Amino acid sequence: MNENRALANVRVLDLTRVLAGPLCGALLADLGAEVIKVEQPGSGDDARQFNPFVNGESSYFMNLNRSKKGVTLNLKTGKDIFLKMVETSDVVIENFKPGTMKKLGLDYEVLKEINPKIIYVAISGFGQHGPYSQLPGYDLIGQAMSGLMSVTGEADGEPLRAGGPVCDVMGGMTGAMGVLAALNHRHSSGRGQMIDISLQDTLVTSMMTLNQHYLVDNRVPQRRGNSYESAAPADSFRAADGWFVITVGNDKLWRVLVDLMEMPELLDMPEFETNFKRVQNGKELKKHIEKWSATRKVADLVEALLAAKVPAAPILDVKQVCTDPHIADARGMFVETDHPKAGRVRITNSALRLSETDAVVRSPAPTLGQHNDDVYQSTFGFAPDDVRAWKAAKII
Amino acid sequence: MNENRALANVRVLDLTRVLAGPLCGALLADLGAEVIKVEQPGSGDDARQFNPFVNGESSYFMNLNRSKKGVTLNLKTGKDIFLKMVETSDVVIENFKPGTMKKLGLDYEVLKEINPKIIYVAISGFGQHGPYSQLPGYDLIGQAMSGLMSVTGEADGEPLRAGGPVCDVMGGMTGAMGVLAALNHRHSSGRGQMIDISLQDTLVTSMMTLNQHYLVDNRVPQRRGNSYESAAPADSFRAADGWFVITVGNDKLWRVLVDLMEMPELLDMPEFETNFKRVQNGKELKKHIEKWSATRKVADLVEALLAAKVPAAPILDVKQVCTDPHIADARGMFVETDHPKAGRVRITNSALRLSETDAVVRSPAPTLGQHNDDVYQSTFGFAPDDVRAWKAAKII
Repeated sequence: MNENRALANVRVLDLTRVLAGPLCGALLADLGAEVIKVEQPGSGDDARQFNPFVNGESSYFMNLNRSKKGVTLNLKTGKDIFLKMVETSDVVIENFKPGTMKKLGLDYEVLKEINPKIIYVAISGFGQHGPYSQLPGYDLIGQAMSGLMSVTGEADGEPLRAGGPVCDVMGGMTGAMGVLAALNHRHSSGRGQMIDISLQDTLVTSMMTLNQHYLVDNRVPQRRGNSYESAAPADSFRAADGWFVITVGNDKLWRVLVDLMEMPELLDMPEFETNFKRVQNGKELKKHIEKWSATRKVADLVEALLAAKVPAAPILDVKQVCTDPHIADARGMFVETDHPKAGRVRITNSALRLSETDAVVRSPAPTLGQHNDDVYQSTFGFAPDDVRAWKAAKII
Repeated sequence: MNENRALANVRVLDLTRVLAGPLCGALLADLGAEVIKVEQPGSGDDARQFNPFVNGESSYFMNLNRSKKGVTLNLKTGKDIFLKMVETSDVVIENFKPGTMKKLGLDYEVLKEINPKIIYVAISGFGQHGPYSQLPGYDLIGQAMSGLMSVTGEADGEPLRAGGPVCDVMGGMTGAMGVLAALNHRHSSGRGQMIDISLQDTLVTSMMTLNQHYLVDNRVPQRRGNSYESAAPADSFRAADGWFVITVGNDKLWRVLVDLMEMPELLDMPEFETNFKRVQNGKELKKHIEKWSATRKVADLVEALLAAKVPAAPILDVKQVCTDPHIADARGMFVETDHPKAGRVRITNSALRLSETDAVVRSPAPTLGQHNDDVYQSTFGFAPDDVRAWKAAKII
């Protein structure tokens, strides 16, 4: 059994809420770990209140907690129950404000005494130490403080966030990488460790190629719309029914593009003679290209460009992505789960395609406390009477 | 030895170029794997030509290939040398156009016959199969075709890319996760596997909370600047010397903010009475807040907001990030390497903080073929005469 699970026999206690932490747990769950989502009795993860809903169930929550089991536990009144669970678990993930687990008496120093093999991941806005460690962490704040917003937007416009939660997502991915690395180390050392993930760090590291301009040249990268300083035309352009992008990085492709547009006069214009000049005169260049593109349809433009071997793509909206034959059908990026309350709901799949142990959505997200009996009795061996008593006392 | 390396005794052959693939290798190298960058003799990775430069060495390249050793090898004329190296290696990473390795006779089906334990990662724009698999893959194209650009930008503006290479970065991270998962599986199974990473898939999965609006409600998320549809005021605002962000998600924080701004009249205005109404009237709300903020400095505003427990942050530019006391000093996100040609150069560190096996920049990126003698002779045991002959024949 478990032949197709990269993380067979790995048990994860997932105390996280909202996005970055739950994504970390979901990535491990898709890889076949037994991930037990531990939620506050009565209320649960805040994300259970986030729209959109299906039969009253948050599909935001369903995405981020697929493939997991769910129990409830009050970490104050049920502290001993949690410590007992840690004895036979491999990983604990939390994304509380730094210091919270210490106040509860459940920090890594305590847990490793109970189980030296435990791998403990803390995901927070700014990490477990340093002057900002107590500051609130949100995706928007991470994007603001990593430099990403400062370089996103039009040259003459205001700084903008990436429209998706890229900071939270990279934080969750980095947490999962940390767990996987620590599991590898444990195979040889027999010991667990503590992993400290800062959302801001993860977005700062993603900016390495931009940071370098300051670190090396004291130059501060600026917003420049969709254009690049290294190549032109590499930008977005308007079509009759939307927008598309082109990436032309050398003179040969530039001539191919000019041929395709039937604008040979551009080849005689000194301001477009070299890639460097095309970058410098990018605004004017864009106007010429849009004279050609603005009356044509995106699909026709992209088809013609790709046929001529000019790298190009449509700018797809979310509906187009969700119904795209490559993404949705060939790559299987949207999968249907059968949720006990919401019914059949499609959610977004993992992007990890492994030939022997594929990472895929394995089951729908749990309802609040759905697996209390199963997990407390079968997995951890507590007595049915105890579990009933905890329920009555609202410990679970 | 190697006590502090999560991936001690893991050998990686890294055939990748530019960003996503090299990042995958760099993440594994920081974790302590022996990563051998294999480049085309004479020219090497295209990124060696990317600015900014230090003493003629690309610091773009230095970031993405830190912690690795470097050799040259022509995969056509040196095919047998490569196959010999695969015998004693654990991982192969490539980001060629799908089908290239098969043409070379070096695809996974061939390599696993030589070494059934080999883990083979292919990173490409659209994955190894499906109708788009042969299309060119660039960060801009991934951002365009994942839906991210469609939701990035002002409501009345054009679709924009995230200013950092988020698609390439997530692709590299997902590749590294795949390797780590496959290594875990190999501990029990003894077998390697093939990992297929599509840049587009990775960005599509990062959009899960937005995809859900279409999958559940047939609603297509739109651009809306920095505001959110779930909470207001959660947006960016103009100060006298820049911009900052606020995230206010409930009525209590709203009242705290109004008190701080000394604008009690806002509490009497029906259009701002509830979070829902504040979202609906967000544009007007922004004007009121900017009346307060536009004459004040970012640092003062953020200090006052945080003192009042209102989540807020400055929008830092790349210089501010690179010199920030928390990011640069406390978190150590920029590290100095001593490169054989470029000298002392600061590059961006990994974001993975592990207490026992920290993932850190371990050595500077190699110059082209820097470790040819070391790697071919000491690591793989080829005869010095053979290595000399290969050099003469430009095989390496």
